[in-house]
Amino acid sequence: MSGTMVLGLDVGGTSTRATVVSLTGERLGTGRAGGGNPTSHGAEPAAAQLRIALHAALAGLDPTLVRAGTIGLAGAGRLLADPAGRAAFDRAWHQVGLRCPYAVVGDALVAYASGTAEPDGTILIAGTGAIAAEVRDLTLDRVADGHGWLLGDAGSGFWLGREAVRHTLAELDAQQPPGTLGRLVLTELLGSAQVAPRSRDTGDLLVQAVTRRAPVELAGLAPLLVRAAADGEPAATGIVAEAARLLAASVARIRPTAARSPVVLGGGLLTGATPLADAVRPALAARWPTAPLLGAGDGAVAAAWLAARALPEVTDPAELHRRLLGRAPS
Amino acid sequence: MSGTMVLGLDVGGTSTRATVVSLTGERLGTGRAGGGNPTSHGAEPAAAQLRIALHAALAGLDPTLVRAGTIGLAGAGRLLADPAGRAAFDRAWHQVGLRCPYAVVGDALVAYASGTAEPDGTILIAGTGAIAAEVRDLTLDRVADGHGWLLGDAGSGFWLGREAVRHTLAELDAQQPPGTLGRLVLTELLGSAQVAPRSRDTGDLLVQAVTRRAPVELAGLAPLLVRAAADGEPAATGIVAEAARLLAASVARIRPTAARSPVVLGGGLLTGATPLADAVRPALAARWPTAPLLGAGDGAVAAAWLAARALPEVTDPAELHRRLLGRAPS
Repeated sequence: MSGTMVLGLDVGGTSTRATVVSLTGERLGTGRAGGGNPTSHGAEPAAAQLRIALHAALAGLDPTLVRAGTIGLAGAGRLLADPAGRAAFDRAWHQVGLRCPYAVVGDALVAYASGTAEPDGTILIAGTGAIAAEVRDLTLDRVADGHGWLLGDAGSGFWLGREAVRHTLAELDAQQPPGTLGRLVLTELLGSAQVAPRSRDTGDLLVQAVTRRAPVELAGLAPLLVRAAADGEPAATGIVAEAARLLAASVARIRPTAARSPVVLGGGLLTGATPLADAVRPALAARWPTAPLLGAGDGAVAAAWLAARALPEVTDPAELHRRLLGRAPS
Repeated sequence: MSGTMVLGLDVGGTSTRATVVSLTGERLGTGRAGGGNPTSHGAEPAAAQLRIALHAALAGLDPTLVRAGTIGLAGAGRLLADPAGRAAFDRAWHQVGLRCPYAVVGDALVAYASGTAEPDGTILIAGTGAIAAEVRDLTLDRVADGHGWLLGDAGSGFWLGREAVRHTLAELDAQQPPGTLGRLVLTELLGSAQVAPRSRDTGDLLVQAVTRRAPVELAGLAPLLVRAAADGEPAATGIVAEAARLLAASVARIRPTAARSPVVLGGGLLTGATPLADAVRPALAARWPTAPLLGAGDGAVAAAWLAARALPEVTDPAELHRRLLGRAPS
């Protein structure tokens, strides 16, 4: 295998994904490992996952032909400000035989670039957390939310999961029989949808089941809410509509009213035809009727594309984007 | 000093208050100590505070003449189910020379009884947390909220403090100059209302300042919101109005639509002419136009009254309530 290659990494809290691509748009190798965020996992354990993903992606390839790399990472600024973390990443990079430099960028930029080659636009992500950012010349500019579960992440998976439990507690307080959503929540957290003769006792058990775990694990209940909304339960659709309103409000804090640039929807709750994506699209279209609303694609491939577009031989980055990520240049 | 006496204790997370009263309505002694909740402080440290408050309240009095006692306590049920906690309280009780039995009741019942002698009604409390409860024959019946800061306490001090920070973060995200509330929050948490050239940097510092402390300490920011609302800042009055709506919704979960019984407003955010009380009163009056809306009074005196009314020689408990807590029998 010969020819110039570039490498992209999408480093998340639960998985690290690496992809090697050619400048003609072929995917040459992929690798996957566990969470590699140095802030949450520590510099050395994170670098070890990086090495595993890189090693797999480079199998059968000559690493010295990789000309550029980009690592997309939540809290990229913290890594750049952390000499130990940066050194651990450098070592992992060189241990697999890579000789080229690499750039570290925010995961929000990688998610944006996975949806469009346009240099200016907006990215909205809803997964465990939620964040919106303006992109200018393929660099992150203004950011809204992403403030974490205690103070922010409005409309995120955490937010949906918490509202699902709050709705169930309100039903129990009012001594109403739990609806679809309440039954799903009770079964998930207590093993049964049965309500005690004193419904307050069931509510207390529910609160205890949640507070025994880390608060952020409430995000694990978001799929129940999505399922109840898909079933048409009014309470669940109401909560999804409110989440969509909050996400659109986060976008409105940073995106100019007259913008016509694309908006990319990313994160597990907005990628694909989810009920939340179905609710967010009209909320965004109402404010920005001419903006293309695009879905996010493969983050590691997008990171590789970000690396490639800086090379002098890549004369048509939009065409390379189309080949790699399957969208027509807009 | 002779004559039959009763004793009341109002045990909270930050203070313990004891009061001895005569059956003719005289306040004979008071004592105060630190937080005495066995759930949050541990059985022995809690019992030590109980002893301090009892000792002070009984100074110069003959403890063998105390005929009955009531302890009001958040999570009363947990103490009754905890043999070690109950034994520690028993020892404290006897060490100060008390010979009579005592009852343990929920702090919400004590707050209710501090506002009215009516056996049936509703109590709504907003302090650090928020809870609403129905009272039947001076016993707590159905309860709404009180689910803690992560899942409940809608409209509480925690909720107000969190909304104050969220509002400030939204202003910073939108690159708007902070208003009255935002400036109060920034000054309180960062020592200055100055915003960095990149407003995101100030937002990040704000999030860090909050997450360094226990989440429940957000309740300490509620007074800033109350102050900004009193100043007429629209954002602050909007947040207070939403808190009032949430508190009224909690009451609606447990109080029958046609109820005419009194509603007592208690807790630091609803006792007196606070902006939140001013917003809650019309919200409750709109649903229950004929219900008397009463303010909570002295919890330790109310606990003493609850102890007294069970004694055979107290033939007119409503009259004793009026003497002790200064309200006409309704």
